Amino acid sequence: MAKVLLGKEVADVLTEELIERVAKLKDNGVEPTLAIVRLGAEADDLSYERGALKRAERVGVKVNVHELARDLSQEDLEQVILDINADDSVHGCLVFRPLPQQIDEEKIGAMLASKKDIDGFTDGSLAGVFKGEDSGFAPCTAEAAIAILKHYNVELSGARAVVLGRSLVIGKPVAMMLLQENSTVTICHSRTKDIAVVAKDADVLIAAVGQAKMVTLDFVNPEQVIIDVGINVDDEGKLTGDVDYDAVEPEVKALTPVPRGVGSVTTSILMKHVVEAAERTLN
Amino acid sequence: MAKVLLGKEVADVLTEELIERVAKLKDNGVEPTLAIVRLGAEADDLSYERGALKRAERVGVKVNVHELARDLSQEDLEQVILDINADDSVHGCLVFRPLPQQIDEEKIGAMLASKKDIDGFTDGSLAGVFKGEDSGFAPCTAEAAIAILKHYNVELSGARAVVLGRSLVIGKPVAMMLLQENSTVTICHSRTKDIAVVAKDADVLIAAVGQAKMVTLDFVNPEQVIIDVGINVDDEGKLTGDVDYDAVEPEVKALTPVPRGVGSVTTSILMKHVVEAAERTLN
Repeated sequence: MAKVLLGKEVADVLTEELIERVAKLKDNGVEPTLAIVRLGAEADDLSYERGALKRAERVGVKVNVHELARDLSQEDLEQVILDINADDSVHGCLVFRPLPQQIDEEKIGAMLASKKDIDGFTDGSLAGVFKGEDSGFAPCTAEAAIAILKHYNVELSGARAVVLGRSLVIGKPVAMMLLQENSTVTICHSRTKDIAVVAKDADVLIAAVGQAKMVTLDFVNPEQVIIDVGINVDDEGKLTGDVDYDAVEPEVKALTPVPRGVGSVTTSILMKHVVEAAERTLN
Repeated sequence: MAKVLLGKEVADVLTEELIERVAKLKDNGVEPTLAIVRLGAEADDLSYERGALKRAERVGVKVNVHELARDLSQEDLEQVILDINADDSVHGCLVFRPLPQQIDEEKIGAMLASKKDIDGFTDGSLAGVFKGEDSGFAPCTAEAAIAILKHYNVELSGARAVVLGRSLVIGKPVAMMLLQENSTVTICHSRTKDIAVVAKDADVLIAAVGQAKMVTLDFVNPEQVIIDVGINVDDEGKLTGDVDYDAVEPEVKALTPVPRGVGSVTTSILMKHVVEAAERTLN
């Protein structure tokens, strides 16, 4: 039987730590503040926002939600971003993506002030992740995966890590962060040959493909730790990860469930980034 | 016996192509121009510069060499960079690195206009490499490694590529570019366990560690193609790569020599970047 790596435990520790840091910030006259920019009312965005608001309240971070029309013009969105850049009382800004078609997402990313980008949207943040420096902020979900591994003291240095997926929000940044932890990192994707064979060798397996239950018994070994970043809906309408949990769970060392795994940590990382961005304004 | 992947052949093809593109640029009234910023007269810098000047002359790229004192102040170097940024007749800028200790290299990198950064120095260029976009320019040596593989029609899609080394100038960008070519990419480094075992599985092996002759017979297989990016001096004072060439050559499919391999292509890539930067000013 595998150890189940619950996200809540990680989030709780992070939250306690952040409550203290927020108190110190407030002693210094700084109220850490997050601006959320949401176009329309997409279900995924709303669900994430609810979680973020709840976590923010626990931690003591103020949130300004900019609820905008889904058909907002590029020009108007740019003005919102520029206003957020100019507002010294706002330390971090989360823009829900993907943005609707009429918006040039690349351009919005280039416009947001790097220091307020707490979700790996801007070139400055991405270059920081690529360089392995703390200058910017990594995408929150990618960092949540690493935070779980660290919390549960999974040995990363010298470990063989295999990342399934090469997206810019998870696969690539997770790979860079694992490299920073001195793992030997392999990045797999849809064109990888014998993907199960490659995965099977992993000490640490990160599943971030977005394909329900694709990680089967063929992918795993008894010493393996699996972080399941997938969020999919299966044929029966049930939320499920990229891992065939029931099949794999008895045969690996540890794994995160879906739900109650990575997703439970992401908003805590978001708050950590806002707090860090606020702390940097004091230095 | 392995096929020897000579850099000259790749550079020659690139050069012919660039001569035509430069002619077109000049027809449009644009003389592609490279600014080289060199502090002092380090032997490595001078050697690279000589190669670059020769290649630039062949291709028809104008070069302005800013030969500055090795003990130049941060402030004075910043002014040089700002002047280059402001000079519309200059399309690309190569700053020799590492810069001396009194210089904040990070700050200089942040100051150089991204569009003129033809050697992967700025965050904009690095983010481009990380994203797999052509928005910026990759470090020239990393791109030279890929150019050789492509020139000799080495199958990259679905190939197992192993990169030895995780530097920001070679290892990491080469890994991202191989990923872009749909290879399954593994990044190894000094903390990798059983590095020879990992390397032995590779269809394509990139050696970029900077350790003379570290890639021995244990690292290779008969179907392997090796790109040797190392430039080291061995015990007898002879230039040598990261690969133990004499031992490995009979046992692999193809490999680059050192010298006459990757190093012969780098200045052609540099010129390609200057020409592209100049072409972009026309669009």
